[in-house]
Amino acid sequence: MKSLEEKINELTHSILDDYKDERTVNEIKAFDHPDNDEIIGIIEGLRRIVFPGYFRNKSYRVFTVRNNMSMILEDVIFKLIRQIYIVLRYDEKYEKLDDNELNNNAIRITFEYLNKIPKIREYIETDVQAAYDGDPAAYNKDEIIYSYPGLYAILVNRLAHELFVLGVPLIPRVMTEHAHSKTGIDIHPGATIGKYFFIDHGTGIVIGETTEIGDYVKVYQGVTLGALSTRGGQSLRNKKRHPTIEDNVTIYSGASILGGETVVGRNAVIGGNVFITRSVPAGAKVSVKNQELRYNFDDSSKVEKSDLDNDESWFYII
Amino acid sequence: MKSLEEKINELTHSILDDYKDERTVNEIKAFDHPDNDEIIGIIEGLRRIVFPGYFRNKSYRVFTVRNNMSMILEDVIFKLIRQIYIVLRYDEKYEKLDDNELNNNAIRITFEYLNKIPKIREYIETDVQAAYDGDPAAYNKDEIIYSYPGLYAILVNRLAHELFVLGVPLIPRVMTEHAHSKTGIDIHPGATIGKYFFIDHGTGIVIGETTEIGDYVKVYQGVTLGALSTRGGQSLRNKKRHPTIEDNVTIYSGASILGGETVVGRNAVIGGNVFITRSVPAGAKVSVKNQELRYNFDDSSKVEKSDLDNDESWFYII
Amino acid sequence: MKSLEEKINELTHSILDDYKDERTVNEIKAFDHPDNDEIIGIIEGLRRIVFPGYFRNKSYRVFTVRNNMSMILEDVIFKLIRQIYIVLRYDEKYEKLDDNELNNNAIRITFEYLNKIPKIREYIETDVQAAYDGDPAAYNKDEIIYSYPGLYAILVNRLAHELFVLGVPLIPRVMTEHAHSKTGIDIHPGATIGKYFFIDHGTGIVIGETTEIGDYVKVYQGVTLGALSTRGGQSLRNKKRHPTIEDNVTIYSGASILGGETVVGRNAVIGGNVFITRSVPAGAKVSVKNQELRYNFDDSSKVEKSDLDNDESWFYII
Repeated sequence: MKSLEEKINELTHSILDDYKDERTVNEIKAFDHPDNDEIIGIIEGLRRIVFPGYFRNKSYRVFTVRNNMSMILEDVIFKLIRQIYIVLRYDEKYEKLDDNELNNNAIRITFEYLNKIPKIREYIETDVQAAYDGDPAAYNKDEIIYSYPGLYAILVNRLAHELFVLGVPLIPRVMTEHAHSKTGIDIHPGATIGKYFFIDHGTGIVIGETTEIGDYVKVYQGVTLGALSTRGGQSLRNKKRHPTIEDNVTIYSGASILGGETVVGRNAVIGGNVFITRSVPAGAKVSVKNQELRYNFDDSSKVEKSDLDNDESWFYII
Repeated sequence: MKSLEEKINELTHSILDDYKDERTVNEIKAFDHPDNDEIIGIIEGLRRIVFPGYFRNKSYRVFTVRNNMSMILEDVIFKLIRQIYIVLRYDEKYEKLDDNELNNNAIRITFEYLNKIPKIREYIETDVQAAYDGDPAAYNKDEIIYSYPGLYAILVNRLAHELFVLGVPLIPRVMTEHAHSKTGIDIHPGATIGKYFFIDHGTGIVIGETTEIGDYVKVYQGVTLGALSTRGGQSLRNKKRHPTIEDNVTIYSGASILGGETVVGRNAVIGGNVFITRSVPAGAKVSVKNQELRYNFDDSSKVEKSDLDNDESWFYII
Repeated sequence: MKSLEEKINELTHSILDDYKDERTVNEIKAFDHPDNDEIIGIIEGLRRIVFPGYFRNKSYRVFTVRNNMSMILEDVIFKLIRQIYIVLRYDEKYEKLDDNELNNNAIRITFEYLNKIPKIREYIETDVQAAYDGDPAAYNKDEIIYSYPGLYAILVNRLAHELFVLGVPLIPRVMTEHAHSKTGIDIHPGATIGKYFFIDHGTGIVIGETTEIGDYVKVYQGVTLGALSTRGGQSLRNKKRHPTIEDNVTIYSGASILGGETVVGRNAVIGGNVFITRSVPAGAKVSVKNQELRYNFDDSSKVEKSDLDNDESWFYII
């Protein structure tokens, strides 16, 4: 019988052999690839810059706020330059540049990006206000900043969107997918979102790449702002595939609004589970007509615990 | 051209300048704020206390179970006292107390809270049993304790709810939002839940602050126990806005039950995707009447792979 | 008044006393239990083996790819042997074996399992291709590998499924529940999935234990491939309870397909929110007939911001 060491050697060889073809899943050029952990570190650094004082740095105890902030900022700057430098190669516009030119572009983009922090802070402050005004379960604004997944998803979208607008490949999507993983809210970095945006609960929300959202919009869990068809695949890239939502629209849970030509006019209210593929005029309130329900009774109404477990194929079950 | 150092200095100054206004997003008082990581540490410590032997402490190897447990308990006690001390300031009842009085209150609340651990353990044991009885995919109870997101969400809700009842601000919500992030199950710490509660799959579940749930209730993924309207915003705070679910009710996936006056009577069964805004009598089985479907065929039924990509605007798509 | 130390002692005793009964939640045999962190470490190691060069090892800088890979592989091997050794006791087939025999079985299973890595790599490469072909928002394949939650969930399912097929208890479910936690996509390790599988967005997807899925299948967010009834509980274990989806089927968001005898024939398209409990013939396109919507207008259509907050009980709200 083979020893454990022999078995390990054999297995190692057979797996390394399998790496020899040229395949997408291989790509053995580790140094050239972006690093998800670094990108998550950038998000956390930016979050501390946007909300100074809320999210502590493990080393803040020995520094003044000012020194602490400039430390965080410097860290974010170097991480961003490094990661942007790596991903610029994904864009054919940059792929012929030499290392030095790539680096200069990474520096230029990093500073253009970080100069937008005050604007992002202005917007996110309106989002905190919108959550407080809209949610009777919010006891104070700090609770929103510390714990609301909707606010986190909006923050990461605002951070990622500005990078997306500057043409940085890959990093914006890694950022929003990190937020998606933490919150269940899937907002593509391409989506454009106005001030005072409020997401309640949020799990299951999908907001597509070319969606445009005005000011004072509220969206609840399970809402899709999606495309009418993606069967065209890559041929649909860069086309407006997702809807436009005007100011002061509320969209209740489970509603789907689909299509690049679909516009929901200002002040409209879209009820729960409504499925819309055409435009809605301003001020309209749209709801599903009464769902027809069937009520069924049997003698089990007196039963205590498990006697309901009979044949009951008539009701919808998972 | 400016050096990198000059650019960093300029940027740092412009961002620090932006902190000068008095704004919600600033709040530069780092030491007074609760710490999400500490609160997550409290959850993990409590989880080990509730399930001794299941979730190992990295240092348990050198201690007996008894010594290990008292170490974990001591750690949880000090973390809880510290975090409760910090958040009590959010409650106007405590805001005029001096540091010493605040600390005494934090100690009092911490011990009142931890004395409820045996009760929480009693309840969570019934939840494990309910999951085992209800799920044919459960191979044994350990699988449920190790891997079921529903059990994790219920545990965190039970832990957070007792803190919520003791009037501790903010921490209960941070706890349940941590569970929401891990599981996609959003249960407000205010919700009251009976014994033998079973959540299957769970992603997308929303259970609001004033919901009351009896014993032997089963809930599947995508269910909302919500409010009929939150348009009143902060004026609705403290009102009963969410439904009451009596003993032995089953609620299948995607159902929504809304409103503070809505009562689902004992032994009722609510079918998948049912949308209810009024009370359901005991023993009723409620289902959506047959959804009308359209079937369409074309010659493509012989086609192998991608020839379906024609104009197909008739079907609902994301 | 009692000192803090006395209080801690009292509390410790009362909680340790509560451990004395024989209860499921106790199980104070820490060394015999599997370790979630180790299992997550196994997933991450396997992910690096499947995609060499994509996900860096913190120590890769000092090693060649070949040496790095054999280090990762060795680490995965030892972790797997250890964890499989622990969980084999859950299977009555193994429970009478002595430690040495258990260990030999753990070694045997580990190598049988790892010999399937090339097959898993072959399948996952087709999944990357399917995502690229199917999603106009995908800018390149690396974006899919780095950021798409659907790809992550499929990878973990493929890894867990092969362990499940080899009869390893508990670990496969811990693996897929880890993916569920990160992605909101809940695929049981028992589900069998063909090549070129594409999940878009994904949050809320549930795919049950006995589901069978062919090649070139696309599934969108919120889809359930579920059981018609789980009221039989444990008595239904090992029965085919979930549907069969043939080649080249597309299932749009929110659709539910239920039941172990339900077969969706090849090339069928299932529209959004369709609820199906019986078989669909090959080539059929199934959609919900037009949902009846109610549109309501009032003078508020000229109103700017918050004047809509009147009595509006007619629309569906969360």
